[in-house]
Amino acid sequence: MAKEYIDIATLKYLLYDVHQLKDVLKQDRFSDHDEASLNMFLDSVKEFSDRELFPYFKEMDEKPAHYKDGGVEVHKQVEVMMKKGGEMGLISGTFDYEAGGLQMPMMMLTASAFIQDAANNHLPGYAGLTLGAAELIINFASKELNDTYVPKMLAGEWGGTMCLTEPQAGSSLSDVATKAIPQDDGSYQIKGQKIFISGGDHQYAENFVHLVLARIEGAPAGTKGISLFVVPKKRPDENGNLISNNVTTVADFQKMGQRGYCTTHLDFGDNDDCKGFLVGKPHQGLKYMFLMMNGARIAVGRGAAAIATAAYHASLEYAKERPQGRKLASTGKKDPEQGQTFIINHPDVRRMLLLQKVVSEGSLSLVLLASKYYDLKETLTDKEEKKKYELLLELIIPMVKTYPSEMGAQAVSNGLQVLGGYGFCSDFILQQYYRDIRIFPIYEGTTGIQSQDLLGRKLLLEDGKALQLLSEEMTQTIKNASKYDELQKYAVKLGEKLKEVSGTIQHLVSFAKKGDYERYLSDATPFMEYMSIVTLAWVWLDMAAHAKYALLTGDKNYSDEFYESKIHAMRFFFKYELPKTDGLASILKDEEVLTIADEKEVFI
Amino acid sequence: MAKEYIDIATLKYLLYDVHQLKDVLKQDRFSDHDEASLNMFLDSVKEFSDRELFPYFKEMDEKPAHYKDGGVEVHKQVEVMMKKGGEMGLISGTFDYEAGGLQMPMMMLTASAFIQDAANNHLPGYAGLTLGAAELIINFASKELNDTYVPKMLAGEWGGTMCLTEPQAGSSLSDVATKAIPQDDGSYQIKGQKIFISGGDHQYAENFVHLVLARIEGAPAGTKGISLFVVPKKRPDENGNLISNNVTTVADFQKMGQRGYCTTHLDFGDNDDCKGFLVGKPHQGLKYMFLMMNGARIAVGRGAAAIATAAYHASLEYAKERPQGRKLASTGKKDPEQGQTFIINHPDVRRMLLLQKVVSEGSLSLVLLASKYYDLKETLTDKEEKKKYELLLELIIPMVKTYPSEMGAQAVSNGLQVLGGYGFCSDFILQQYYRDIRIFPIYEGTTGIQSQDLLGRKLLLEDGKALQLLSEEMTQTIKNASKYDELQKYAVKLGEKLKEVSGTIQHLVSFAKKGDYERYLSDATPFMEYMSIVTLAWVWLDMAAHAKYALLTGDKNYSDEFYESKIHAMRFFFKYELPKTDGLASILKDEEVLTIADEKEVFI
Repeated sequence: MAKEYIDIATLKYLLYDVHQLKDVLKQDRFSDHDEASLNMFLDSVKEFSDRELFPYFKEMDEKPAHYKDGGVEVHKQVEVMMKKGGEMGLISGTFDYEAGGLQMPMMMLTASAFIQDAANNHLPGYAGLTLGAAELIINFASKELNDTYVPKMLAGEWGGTMCLTEPQAGSSLSDVATKAIPQDDGSYQIKGQKIFISGGDHQYAENFVHLVLARIEGAPAGTKGISLFVVPKKRPDENGNLISNNVTTVADFQKMGQRGYCTTHLDFGDNDDCKGFLVGKPHQGLKYMFLMMNGARIAVGRGAAAIATAAYHASLEYAKERPQGRKLASTGKKDPEQGQTFIINHPDVRRMLLLQKVVSEGSLSLVLLASKYYDLKETLTDKEEKKKYELLLELIIPMVKTYPSEMGAQAVSNGLQVLGGYGFCSDFILQQYYRDIRIFPIYEGTTGIQSQDLLGRKLLLEDGKALQLLSEEMTQTIKNASKYDELQKYAVKLGEKLKEVSGTIQHLVSFAKKGDYERYLSDATPFMEYMSIVTLAWVWLDMAAHAKYALLTGDKNYSDEFYESKIHAMRFFFKYELPKTDGLASILKDEEVLTIADEKEVFI
Repeated sequence: MAKEYIDIATLKYLLYDVHQLKDVLKQDRFSDHDEASLNMFLDSVKEFSDRELFPYFKEMDEKPAHYKDGGVEVHKQVEVMMKKGGEMGLISGTFDYEAGGLQMPMMMLTASAFIQDAANNHLPGYAGLTLGAAELIINFASKELNDTYVPKMLAGEWGGTMCLTEPQAGSSLSDVATKAIPQDDGSYQIKGQKIFISGGDHQYAENFVHLVLARIEGAPAGTKGISLFVVPKKRPDENGNLISNNVTTVADFQKMGQRGYCTTHLDFGDNDDCKGFLVGKPHQGLKYMFLMMNGARIAVGRGAAAIATAAYHASLEYAKERPQGRKLASTGKKDPEQGQTFIINHPDVRRMLLLQKVVSEGSLSLVLLASKYYDLKETLTDKEEKKKYELLLELIIPMVKTYPSEMGAQAVSNGLQVLGGYGFCSDFILQQYYRDIRIFPIYEGTTGIQSQDLLGRKLLLEDGKALQLLSEEMTQTIKNASKYDELQKYAVKLGEKLKEVSGTIQHLVSFAKKGDYERYLSDATPFMEYMSIVTLAWVWLDMAAHAKYALLTGDKNYSDEFYESKIHAMRFFFKYELPKTDGLASILKDEEVLTIADEKEVFI
């Protein structure tokens, strides 16, 4: 195991200096918080993660969650995560005081959970899904459901889950088939199967509160016939005693990674004795669920950024300590009489490490930015401003979920490569990060689905208003950065890219306008990559501009080297990552249609 | 498990039609072989792989090779692989008749091993390394060593290994420290540690013949002081009885993938009773080893191509059978009343499958081409022609090792993604391919090392003669393809790229000329990617030109759809893969120097 899994200075730099948490703390909702108190909170989370999460990371992989005797057995730290996490406010932190929360900004939740994810990505999900489920109840369900379920959830005594996916439907929620049959007592009888339910069962919670998408008998087909239900594993009887609610754990999926985080297959109502309680109004289930989705997608991006970060630190540590080979002499030869050098001094190793750095820190910056948009759209009172951040959030959210997941996986792969043969060995931790992160481009909406969301929905939002707002934000950064001689050239580059993006989008949108949606969306995934890289170039230019500002004004919280390293990383991104957009633009403008199914069999 | 792991028609098409095995069969050495007999051989290998390799693929992952009581326990199919494989000529196939071989072309070895690798990549390595070790003995060692060791190895009774890597040296062979102390009887006392020794020990071989790099006492430092030794696990005593040779198996590395293929840590001579027998002359060890390296690197590229191929077939099968979602209507909406479609009909899934197809079939074509060069340089009698193929082989070999490994891993990742959540689950096979293939960019020289070989050595070979020859080959294909209207546009594109490559190389070489070798080589890995993509574009254009020829002349062995699908795949490569070179060219020409170590700390 490596000694460190994050750089807390970079996290705080991004939170306070680059993304100016204080803009958020100004809002009434957060008036009890200040940087000092939040700093203490972050430090306590780091301390908790050092002690309770990180040391069990490898062990949880080696002794995975598994099905046993009708239930799921998980590692003992799951109990610590839930109960201690509950006490510390890791579940309820962002909730209203009246719901038992601390009214913390989303930016803090993200920063805090980032630390936990980096320490041990198998654990925070148990708390995170409980949070999500509680949030749905708090926002949309009756007082009675709130009183019955929420307090135990926020305390980490009861687990919460989201039950969307079904075996026959996969990502296609319009095909959800779980049935809800109205009962005389106002409840519903639930019957159906849900798969891939994270944190769906284990020995450390007395009860589980499942938030289940189901179709009330007679509801219309498709997504508009889906309702949301609270379906507990155990329901209170008339005396308040918990009795079985006929929710059966059928299996725990064994997986390539995140093996400590259970992934269950649940059966609801095989004996026709499973009660569900409607949340909000009938047929509005998907709407409610999707109001929570932004938070969930920030969480996925954050988790992937965290794994990439931890992998970066592990491979960096190795590269600094491992002697191997020699530096090239000016003859182009190596002198065997010379002592070995550390591998961090080989340019190719530095290139791999720098890629990890720009991906992991860039991703973290992106998820913090999204969290800031989230906080502002939730708390600003000016309607137009509120709308602005809502649109910005909607637009970037698919990238926030996808970029850290996809590029994080590549970054971790670089980290593994830094270790050579050892990277592939179970005794070293890189291979675990490599396996763990591979789920991130899949869950909470695959990369393909996020890409269609970005191109097919978000880009067209309010006639392209969201995109216009994002361009304005980028243009502002370009203006700021242009003030500094050293950054001017990069500012110009980003400006040119922005123009190119606009042309590329016009080209694509012309297909939508002609009604050729299949063509329009057929290259959504390359478009996602294209747009994300430009967005990350912006994120990095912004980080570099803040660093330059600190260096020039002397308004510094960190060493000169710290700021210089951020500028160096920005230059790396512009040299090695941004040029990928050249090829992507040419894919997106290519006239050939090669991926739309027709009569021809192309797979032989 | 999928039903199929390769498409034998594509393999035969590449072997006979595209790469014209008959050019090779014309050579005297192969006069006993013809297409019919080789076809029968291939069919028997396929039948063997279907029966003895593929069915055990998952089980070998689930019950990995492991250390036990001083030895390594492997799956029982290892015995079948070795003994049956020995009988079938899978070890000795390419060897001279007088060495007990069948004088088959390398092209056939590649095709045959490709089938086996695709069926179960954990097994063929046991035979492959035995082959490599035997080849070294046959080519460079004394008659006595040949007589003592080779026959048992070719029969699959004794295993063979290559022992290069040491714990303190890693990839840096100049730091090999294993000692060889001359003895009065002409043998050497060997003392040292070797790690990552594939197939180094197991219960199914009576003996192991290790080919060990070591340093004779007093030898010069660096690679020029390294000698090669035969070091058996058991040596014959004066009566010919096998006695222990003090080779101890210290451990079997547990790994993320290829878990059925043992990876041992061997200790030589901890009791000062380990005898080694010099192969050839002192201090020539690395030269001998590297003469075998081309074969080994073709084998790695082939293995990666094979895994990518098997993963492609597994995900293709899933995509054809899995209903999910609907096709987009011209309104841009989906109609929930409409029946579900199979996921293969979604453009994004087709894009992922087509990437797998172009990578796996393109890689296979590349390794067969390298094998053809190998056969021609070995058997042609005209000195200039012989030299030509030797140079072509030397130039492409780093790409042959690297492209299938790196892009194969990405292709498999796409395959996993096609299955969504199931792709991540242990019950499905994609995750195993994903784990298995990750070692390929590491062993037999990492991607970084291959890239330095390509740019630092091969490109400069004989004043760039090799590169000139490759350009001529590409130009010939461009000329051929230009004859067909449908292909002209792609031929033109490749021609333009070729010009660009030449400019990019000139730019890079200017650093070498100035003596700035560190700068010259600092972007060797992006250069590898750049050069490989152009090479693959050529490989695909060649495949498409052959397909077009067949369609137009009617000289067909396969259906029209088969040929059309190859042309479609070429177009896919040109649209989606070739444009990556735009960005790579700009990286390679960028003036910024960001990865060469200096005084600044950039990793904070």
